[in-house]
Amino acid sequence: MRFEGGALLLLDQTALPAEERWLRLTRADEVADAIRRLAVRGAPAIGLAAAYGLVLAARDGSGSSSLRERVHAAADLLAATRPTAVNLRWALDRALESFEAALPSGEEAAGRALAECAHSLAAAQLRQDRRIGEHGAQLFAAGHRVLTHCNAGALATGGAGTAGAVLAAAWEGGRLAHVWVDETRPLLQGARLTAWELGRAGIPYEIVPDSAAGALMARGLVDAVVVGADRIAANGDVANKIGTYGVAALAARHDIPFYVAAPLSTVDPATAAGAAIPIEERSADEVTTVRGMRMAPAGAAAFNPAFDVTPNELVTAIVTEAGVLRAPMRSALADALGAATSPVA
Amino acid sequence: MRFEGGALLLLDQTALPAEERWLRLTRADEVADAIRRLAVRGAPAIGLAAAYGLVLAARDGSGSSSLRERVHAAADLLAATRPTAVNLRWALDRALESFEAALPSGEEAAGRALAECAHSLAAAQLRQDRRIGEHGAQLFAAGHRVLTHCNAGALATGGAGTAGAVLAAAWEGGRLAHVWVDETRPLLQGARLTAWELGRAGIPYEIVPDSAAGALMARGLVDAVVVGADRIAANGDVANKIGTYGVAALAARHDIPFYVAAPLSTVDPATAAGAAIPIEERSADEVTTVRGMRMAPAGAAAFNPAFDVTPNELVTAIVTEAGVLRAPMRSALADALGAATSPVA
Repeated sequence: MRFEGGALLLLDQTALPAEERWLRLTRADEVADAIRRLAVRGAPAIGLAAAYGLVLAARDGSGSSSLRERVHAAADLLAATRPTAVNLRWALDRALESFEAALPSGEEAAGRALAECAHSLAAAQLRQDRRIGEHGAQLFAAGHRVLTHCNAGALATGGAGTAGAVLAAAWEGGRLAHVWVDETRPLLQGARLTAWELGRAGIPYEIVPDSAAGALMARGLVDAVVVGADRIAANGDVANKIGTYGVAALAARHDIPFYVAAPLSTVDPATAAGAAIPIEERSADEVTTVRGMRMAPAGAAAFNPAFDVTPNELVTAIVTEAGVLRAPMRSALADALGAATSPVA
Repeated sequence: MRFEGGALLLLDQTALPAEERWLRLTRADEVADAIRRLAVRGAPAIGLAAAYGLVLAARDGSGSSSLRERVHAAADLLAATRPTAVNLRWALDRALESFEAALPSGEEAAGRALAECAHSLAAAQLRQDRRIGEHGAQLFAAGHRVLTHCNAGALATGGAGTAGAVLAAAWEGGRLAHVWVDETRPLLQGARLTAWELGRAGIPYEIVPDSAAGALMARGLVDAVVVGADRIAANGDVANKIGTYGVAALAARHDIPFYVAAPLSTVDPATAAGAAIPIEERSADEVTTVRGMRMAPAGAAAFNPAFDVTPNELVTAIVTEAGVLRAPMRSALADALGAATSPVA
C-alpha cells in the first residue's frame, strides 16, 4: 500500500498470486469498493486504506458539498464496508479527530492533517508490527512447526504483518522450521496470500485443507498456532477468519499453544465479549463457485459467515506491540490499552 | 451403479453435479482406474465396484493367463487402488471365496459365482443401508438440524447410503428440518455430491465451508452430526474423510451427539485401533488447483491426507444394520460382528 501522486496504490489481493496487479485509487468510493470486494483486506490494512480514503475525499473537489461534509460522508461510506474488524472504525476515528482539530486553521490545514494522520498511522503500523514480531518470535523455539490460518502478513496490515511478522521474526531468529498454511476457504487467503508471502520470504511451508488441522495435531506435527485478529473484545474473545475457532479448539485438545497476534488497535474495549461482535455474512457465491465456476448444484444454498469467535479460554496469549498478554485477559488488555493511551506512554 | 450387458455402468462422480455422465467399464483395470480417480468413491461403493471388477476380469478372455490367474491379478490390482477403506478388501475377499468354492465345478460356474456374489453384495448393501437409515432416524427428532461431512449417500455405497440413508429416513419420518453440508475440501464431495443428492430428495440444506462447523455449533444451530466411515477399528476409532475428527472434537465440546453410520463390513476387527489404519495421501494438486486452475503460487507445496481418525471417545454411537452401537465400543462391535457372522444369525 503506497500513497503517491495523489493516489492510493494497492496491490490487488484478489489477483494474487497469479498476478501482481496494482490498483490506482483516486476517490474514497473506489477505496470503499476495494475494501468491500477484498482487493485490500486484513483488519489493520483496511483501517489504513480507509484513512487514505479520507485523504482522497478531502482532495476531491468535484462535488458541491463542503470539505467537512465530503470527509464525513466518506468516513460513513468507508466505515460501512465491513462490520467485523474494529480497526476500520478506529483508524477513521483517529483521522477524523486530526481533521476536526485542524479545521479551525483552514481547509488546507485540515486536508494536510488527514494526510499526516494516514502517513503516521502507516508508520505506526509498521513499527507496531515489528514489535509484535519481536515479542511473538520469543514464543517459538528452533525446529518449531507452526500452523497459521488465513493471512495476517504484510498484505493484511500494510506494515509487516501480525502473525506474519511473528513468523518472519521467528524464521530470522532460527526459531521456526516449517509453517502449515491453512488454505482458508472460501477465498483461499492462506493458499493464495500467505503462501505467496512465505515463498517470497524463503520460509518453508505446506498448504493444507482447513480440515486437516486436527489430523496434523493428532500426529504431533504442530508445535504452535499463530493467527491474526479482526476484533478482540474487552474480555479477550477473538473474532478472526471463519475456522479460527475450530483450530483453537483442536489446539486446546492437543495442548498446543494458540497465539493471537494483533496491534492494540484491534482491541475494542467497547465490546464486552465476543458474542457482541457483529459477524459479517458474505455472498453464498463465494462458497458455491470458484473463480466464477460453479461447484455446487444450480440453486444450492450456502451459508458464508466470514468470521467466528474464539473464546478467551482457548487463547494462550495475545501478542501485541506492548508485549505478550496472558490470562486474566480482561485486565491484561485493559492495562495495555491504558498504558498505550496514557500521556506518559 | 448397474451391471448391464456385460459392463459395469458407473455415474462418474467427478463430473457431478454439472453433468450426469455414465461410464461403461468392461475391464477390471478400467474399474481400478475409476476407483483411483474417484469416479466411484465411498467405502461400500468401491467395494461393490471392485467385486464387479472381478466379474469383468473373469469374462475378459483376451490374455493368455488362466481364469484363476486373471481373477487373482485383478483382485490384487483393485485392492491396491486405495488403502484406507476396508470394504474394498472385504468385498474382494467375499468374491474370491465364492470364486474358489465354485472353481472345482468348472470355469463357467466360477465366473457365475463371481457375478452372483457381486449382485448379492449389491442387494445386501441396499438392505443394510435401509436398516441403517431406519435405526439412525430414531436418533433424531422433529426440527433437528443435522451437520454432515463429505458424502455418505447412495453415491457412496451403491445402495441407499449410510449417513445419507439416515438423513433420508429421518426426513421421511418428520425427524429432520435442515442439513448443514460441509463442502469437504479439497474435492468438494459435500458441495458437489451430498448437495446434489439432498436436492433430488427435496431435503432442505445449506452448504458451508468446512471451517464453519465450529461457528454453527457455537451459535446453537446444530442438533446432531452424522457421517459415514471408511474403516472402523476394533476399538471403535473411525477413519473417515479428512476433517471428520475436527467436527467430532467440536461436537464433543458443544455436547452435540456425533453419529457414525456404516455397515458392519466397514468394521475391521484386524485393526486394533485407529493409529494402525493406513491413511491415503493424495496429490498436492487436489489442494493447489481447482478444476485445473492454479490457486496457490507456482511451486507451492501442499499436504493432502485424504482421511483422519476420530477416537472412539468422541463417537456417541455407531449406526449399523444390526442396530445402534454405543460404548463400550470394542465389545459392542465384537458382539455385532459375532452375531452377523454366526450361522444362527
